Amino acid sequence: MANPNPIRPTDDEARALAKRLLATATFAALGTIDPTTSAPMVTRIALATTPDRLPVSLISDLSLHAGALKSNPACSLLVGEPGNKGDPLTHPRLTLQCTARAIQKREPGYAQLSQHYLSCRPKAALYAGFADFYFVVFDITSGFLNGGFGKAFRLTPNDLIG
Amino acid sequence: MANPNPIRPTDDEARALAKRLLATATFAALGTIDPTTSAPMVTRIALATTPDRLPVSLISDLSLHAGALKSNPACSLLVGEPGNKGDPLTHPRLTLQCTARAIQKREPGYAQLSQHYLSCRPKAALYAGFADFYFVVFDITSGFLNGGFGKAFRLTPNDLIG
Repeated sequence: MANPNPIRPTDDEARALAKRLLATATFAALGTIDPTTSAPMVTRIALATTPDRLPVSLISDLSLHAGALKSNPACSLLVGEPGNKGDPLTHPRLTLQCTARAIQKREPGYAQLSQHYLSCRPKAALYAGFADFYFVVFDITSGFLNGGFGKAFRLTPNDLIG
Repeated sequence: MANPNPIRPTDDEARALAKRLLATATFAALGTIDPTTSAPMVTRIALATTPDRLPVSLISDLSLHAGALKSNPACSLLVGEPGNKGDPLTHPRLTLQCTARAIQKREPGYAQLSQHYLSCRPKAALYAGFADFYFVVFDITSGFLNGGFGKAFRLTPNDLIG
């Protein structure tokens, strides 16, 4: 058969699903460029969203991704976790392409963001105060929602945070 | 405090944990380079392992990652899924850096690999025969095991498939 275009026109149902996947994610797979090899690298980060719905994480300066994001802030997030049952490819997931923006402890807005993040992720209080931890906000460039076989949608930042 | 090196010497316990995470993964986050933007892109793939313990997936030629891997086979896999409870960062996970190697339906070894894959992932029989599906084997370049806070290890291919 000829290859059909699997991308559907984005509708409100797709936008709502994508927003829900992002709003409920407690962690994400983060794709960066390894500064040593220039090859892709995927690591796990904790995740929450800012009051204006952008993904945000609290990361350690000792982590591989911290070094990668300093070298190149272009990155990607994958959220939407399958359960233990069924084919994992039938479970909806959201790919975001983003630019990472670090917010260090001494920067304006840090205290307010920290208060918000810890209200969402109280267990992070165990390490949020460590000297090597800081926040990274992910400014969204584009999104790709895969709602299961044959249900793919391209998303703009406005689809996700509008 | 000064930043300590969080990487520990690789030991048999780390090797065993990394092998277990890979052998039991039914899906993975795949990091590729988006050929349109040259930025990182993370998508979900199904996963199994070959008889010689390499990660392998059955992917559709219509997927974003199929196009990305054709353009640049350097990629990364993340496996090791947290449960719903506790801090997801305490759950061990394995990052692999790989080179993707496509095995198309007409190539030698396809039938044998397909039989093996479907014995591991019987639900994939629903779409394995579709014209747009083929296998991708991931030749491992390096590994990075994060066994939880302060328990990080660098791994060679031999640590994982030896």
